[in-house]
Amino acid sequence: MFQVNDFENAADSVLEECRLALSAIDKKTVVEYMNAIVLADKVFFAGVGRTMLSLEAIAKRYAHLGIHCVVVGQITEPAITDKDVIIIGSGSGGTLFPVGIARKAKSIGAKVIHIGSNPNSSLTEIEDLFVRIPVESRAKMPDEIHSGQPMTSLFEQSLLLFGDATAMMIIKEKNLDIEKLWEYHANLE
Amino acid sequence: MFQVNDFENAADSVLEECRLALSAIDKKTVVEYMNAIVLADKVFFAGVGRTMLSLEAIAKRYAHLGIHCVVVGQITEPAITDKDVIIIGSGSGGTLFPVGIARKAKSIGAKVIHIGSNPNSSLTEIEDLFVRIPVESRAKMPDEIHSGQPMTSLFEQSLLLFGDATAMMIIKEKNLDIEKLWEYHANLE
Amino acid sequence: MFQVNDFENAADSVLEECRLALSAIDKKTVVEYMNAIVLADKVFFAGVGRTMLSLEAIAKRYAHLGIHCVVVGQITEPAITDKDVIIIGSGSGGTLFPVGIARKAKSIGAKVIHIGSNPNSSLTEIEDLFVRIPVESRAKMPDEIHSGQPMTSLFEQSLLLFGDATAMMIIKEKNLDIEKLWEYHANLE
Amino acid sequence: MFQVNDFENAADSVLEECRLALSAIDKKTVVEYMNAIVLADKVFFAGVGRTMLSLEAIAKRYAHLGIHCVVVGQITEPAITDKDVIIIGSGSGGTLFPVGIARKAKSIGAKVIHIGSNPNSSLTEIEDLFVRIPVESRAKMPDEIHSGQPMTSLFEQSLLLFGDATAMMIIKEKNLDIEKLWEYHANLE
Repeated sequence: MFQVNDFENAADSVLEECRLALSAIDKKTVVEYMNAIVLADKVFFAGVGRTMLSLEAIAKRYAHLGIHCVVVGQITEPAITDKDVIIIGSGSGGTLFPVGIARKAKSIGAKVIHIGSNPNSSLTEIEDLFVRIPVESRAKMPDEIHSGQPMTSLFEQSLLLFGDATAMMIIKEKNLDIEKLWEYHANLE
Repeated sequence: MFQVNDFENAADSVLEECRLALSAIDKKTVVEYMNAIVLADKVFFAGVGRTMLSLEAIAKRYAHLGIHCVVVGQITEPAITDKDVIIIGSGSGGTLFPVGIARKAKSIGAKVIHIGSNPNSSLTEIEDLFVRIPVESRAKMPDEIHSGQPMTSLFEQSLLLFGDATAMMIIKEKNLDIEKLWEYHANLE
Repeated sequence: MFQVNDFENAADSVLEECRLALSAIDKKTVVEYMNAIVLADKVFFAGVGRTMLSLEAIAKRYAHLGIHCVVVGQITEPAITDKDVIIIGSGSGGTLFPVGIARKAKSIGAKVIHIGSNPNSSLTEIEDLFVRIPVESRAKMPDEIHSGQPMTSLFEQSLLLFGDATAMMIIKEKNLDIEKLWEYHANLE
Repeated sequence: MFQVNDFENAADSVLEECRLALSAIDKKTVVEYMNAIVLADKVFFAGVGRTMLSLEAIAKRYAHLGIHCVVVGQITEPAITDKDVIIIGSGSGGTLFPVGIARKAKSIGAKVIHIGSNPNSSLTEIEDLFVRIPVESRAKMPDEIHSGQPMTSLFEQSLLLFGDATAMMIIKEKNLDIEKLWEYHANLE
């Protein structure tokens, strides 16, 4: 039987985990990340599963802020070039598809940014920048933030919140008027 | 120029907004929601844009917990029946596609759960249960939680966190072993 | 028990149906369609199910030919304007989602092209141009081409082949070198 | 300037290419393919780009005929087992993602069916069954069917038509009533 207090407890626990995760991200790395994003010609996003969903949400928001975003796999995906950045989301850094994409993008000269948990992964030698969200993953690192949630939920949540916090930084930096952003939003929904 | 402290400020602000949003959800309604979910034959999910992405993430997680989940629009979407529940995610409650889907599902006898912000929307007369996340939306309700984020970011974030908090409730209620959940996870990634 | 000749019979029958369907399309209407496509600022595509899949395939091919294509619902969907064309694929012309999208696009001033089977549908009063592929549909028109295939398979097949035939027309008209088209193709697959 | 006869010429050429492609498929291999499909517990589909779109269309149609179909990458993708079949669509047989998926599926014990053009590819040593549609591809085989269409359009078209012809074979074999198939179709569109 579900109890009235169950939700409050669960929500508090999820939020506290997210708070720990976000505060453990290295702040200087975020500045490097931001500079790469705003200077890129196009920003590509690749990942799988729920991680991909968080990346898609970030891509959609960044696009509203004037960044040319491409979701890898979208039907009208353009070619990537050496003026572009690709953001690979992968907690473990070992997932087949993102690693293959990262290697391909690197060979073309694109800048590879990896957002993940595991600092010693198949992506380590490929990535140009590693934004670490040091949460519990199958890599089981000693310094990782423990999570009471299933699978890599905490990574996917903190990835979304990281993306949306960086969106606020772009708005502030570009001095955008958020009321006007709706103008650039899809209008067929 | 991006500053080292910008991220901390932005992340704190996002997290505080999420905390306010989740704590404003009516706890008894969540219990009704949980009971509907676990008793349904299948649970369908419909929405648009980033709201849909949050719903897809919830669907994926619930599926790992043994709930038969269907994302409306997925290629192999089965027919909905009167033993099913459909979760409509729509902050404003007025978006064309979700309202049309909700009306269709209702006519077939499915239970319609609306997760949104606006208590007086086109969905109000259709929905069987309304889970309100009372955050700022274009409906501009007097009691809504103000957000410094663009568009409906706060709704989409709190929707994901709401879903993942309810996933924890299901795990507790069903006494699931989270280490074993990987067995049911897609293994081709 | 499947027999060695079954496939040949089935394939012949499918191909003959496609041939009848394509040859029944009005040729002058195709010229109007082509002119609208190449003059548009952006070309949007909307539909559901397998019809949407055929439209996505067309969008992807047109994009390689230098047409700015947008699939309605893609994460980074831009706003539609009165300089754009939207292609609505709907055999029956009565499906909820495409009709709603068409109405919205029309109100913004975009040119609405409907590719379908049913000449008397909810889209009739909205559409600026109707490309009719007169195949069997649930509308059961007297002059429609009968199909031995399930549901609207013939419509979806002839839609794809129509799109790819028009792609050849664009190549010829723009005098494109098809060997060089790979340059603009997604390079991360 | 587009001419009234252009479409007829283009459509005839596309159809003739499709006819040659389908008639060049080995009929005994199709029987093996059919037996594998109807005996499988679940049938998975993997590919990229327009090839994936054709596979998705096949998956959707097969699903209506009572086959449990899974599109690799769909949000609620279940685990694959050794009772399942995976259909890999890849003209060249060398695309990164499908090859990786095929290898993974094989290691789990699933039956790997490759539908492609190139008989000597990275998939050759992995596949249990190879359905060859011998059309022009980047592999440039001596016996391939030449196409005047861009990129691998002919492969993607003949893949869809192959799938829909095999759907007709399933309907005949199972003695299904096609009028009744709508019952199992998604009803929220």
